[in-house]
Amino acid sequence: MMTTIKDVANYANVSVATVSRVLNNKGYISKTAEEAVLKAIKELDYRPNSVARSLYHKTSNMIGLLMPDITNPFFPELARAVEDVAMSYGYTVVFCNTDEEMEKEKTYFEALKQKYVDGMILTTSNMDSTKYDEFDIPLVALDRIISERIPTVVSENKKGAMEATQHLIERDCKYIAHLRGPVGVRPADDRYNGFIEIAEKEGIGYVTADTQFSIELAEEKTLELFQSHPEIDGIFASSDVTAAGAMHALFKLNKQVPQDVKIVGFDGIPLGTMLVPSLTTIQQSIYKMGEKATQLLIDQIEQKAIDTYYHEFPTSLVVRHTT
Amino acid sequence: MMTTIKDVANYANVSVATVSRVLNNKGYISKTAEEAVLKAIKELDYRPNSVARSLYHKTSNMIGLLMPDITNPFFPELARAVEDVAMSYGYTVVFCNTDEEMEKEKTYFEALKQKYVDGMILTTSNMDSTKYDEFDIPLVALDRIISERIPTVVSENKKGAMEATQHLIERDCKYIAHLRGPVGVRPADDRYNGFIEIAEKEGIGYVTADTQFSIELAEEKTLELFQSHPEIDGIFASSDVTAAGAMHALFKLNKQVPQDVKIVGFDGIPLGTMLVPSLTTIQQSIYKMGEKATQLLIDQIEQKAIDTYYHEFPTSLVVRHTT
Repeated sequence: MMTTIKDVANYANVSVATVSRVLNNKGYISKTAEEAVLKAIKELDYRPNSVARSLYHKTSNMIGLLMPDITNPFFPELARAVEDVAMSYGYTVVFCNTDEEMEKEKTYFEALKQKYVDGMILTTSNMDSTKYDEFDIPLVALDRIISERIPTVVSENKKGAMEATQHLIERDCKYIAHLRGPVGVRPADDRYNGFIEIAEKEGIGYVTADTQFSIELAEEKTLELFQSHPEIDGIFASSDVTAAGAMHALFKLNKQVPQDVKIVGFDGIPLGTMLVPSLTTIQQSIYKMGEKATQLLIDQIEQKAIDTYYHEFPTSLVVRHTT
Repeated sequence: MMTTIKDVANYANVSVATVSRVLNNKGYISKTAEEAVLKAIKELDYRPNSVARSLYHKTSNMIGLLMPDITNPFFPELARAVEDVAMSYGYTVVFCNTDEEMEKEKTYFEALKQKYVDGMILTTSNMDSTKYDEFDIPLVALDRIISERIPTVVSENKKGAMEATQHLIERDCKYIAHLRGPVGVRPADDRYNGFIEIAEKEGIGYVTADTQFSIELAEEKTLELFQSHPEIDGIFASSDVTAAGAMHALFKLNKQVPQDVKIVGFDGIPLGTMLVPSLTTIQQSIYKMGEKATQLLIDQIEQKAIDTYYHEFPTSLVVRHTT
């Protein structure tokens, strides 16, 4: 038999309303009554039902995490950080793969609102930025920039890309290819701009190709690039997965890494250490970004003041064996 | 203003109880009343609140997914499959990382029960198997074997391991090392047993080392093995991540893969295709297993009969460039 609030009231010899006031920490309660209620709760092992509380408070102690696709190796670490922080505050995490499809995203927003989810972290956004204001719940943008009204956590993408490009030049690369990420996705665009800025400033030969964050396409585009530009001796890839694709192409072309061609990726996911040779990359603070985003979300949910809406995390060059 | 059940009742000119009967498809309702209610629901765009329904039905259209750690690259594809199937049935997924810690697992069970989660998929189990019966909700064991009373989805681990070992022997390996997974974890034990059975039957030289599914430990153990057994010319690793660790060790030892040493992994995760040379492995039907497990859970939740409790999925040898 499950203990009900009525059992607690009877045991404590108070009204149900009094138990409710204690549970919700609202309204006047005499010290004696409070102690009686707390004792009853303990003795009866009463657990206030969280669904009932959701209904009452319109809150569920749940947050939603919208991702493009958890099988993209950038996301598990981010998801892990979100879940760790959420858990430490007593929130559970509902995770949603949108495949960058607007319809899926909408469906999730509706479904999670119905469950009184307390807030959402968006690592993807395919609706108009004004749309997000209509859902009247706390939001945080993570690795995406959606609107000034939504607290945002991103990496110093441009600065990282500049450092990557500079590193290839310092390692004596004369003709550098950039495997660009999806056009229109802000972090990828920022990396592209950082690359161009340094390549132009240093007066080095360069070429770029549009890719997605996919290994197959990166391999294909790298093979194409080498057909038209066999002089390429350095590659800056917009992600570590893209870099892995480039390495496959070089293996097929019988080019040695790093002797013939040097490669720098971007992300710092575990994949980079698993590649042979291991990948030089621009390390993002993935876990810390996930932590910060979750903290910002919970601060909003708990109606704490948020001083800064825009948070940029530093990146760092990690030199391994591809440069 | 949100539409309430009362608005619907007023609009349809029936009682709230009648609307409730229509919504829950329970008890007698006249055809006229039903039509009026359905029309009112449509006109008013009424969405029965899912938290209220949870409370009433003790169901939430949520399922829990317990994993050791989403950053272990075996799990994202599994999680993706669970979420895809759940979504197609209108369920959302709460995901939980237990780090194989019993206390965390317990905490999640309690937290999710409080939210009337409809069922849970366990890819990890650290409590006594009898403990799971106490939580009176549908469960499915995925990639783990917990109890005969819990529907179970696993790979043909032993058979896959036998095929891996046979393949190394066919590729002329004379002395094979097995990097064993965590002792006591059933899939890892089954792979170990499959390896031993073939090695013994074929009368080949062999050695084994205990590892976890971790890249660092696998590298370390491989270096140790080669110190004591420099004649090793084949490695069967209990997971693809373990195989990646072995490849790093061989790179350090200046051994060529596959010329000097051949390697077979187990899992068939994307990492294998990203490694250079790409990894020969035993492919599990990871996505299909996730689908099946979710289907079995939803069947239980919806009180459909389950014919078979134990589901073994075939594995297949995928020959790439390490053998």
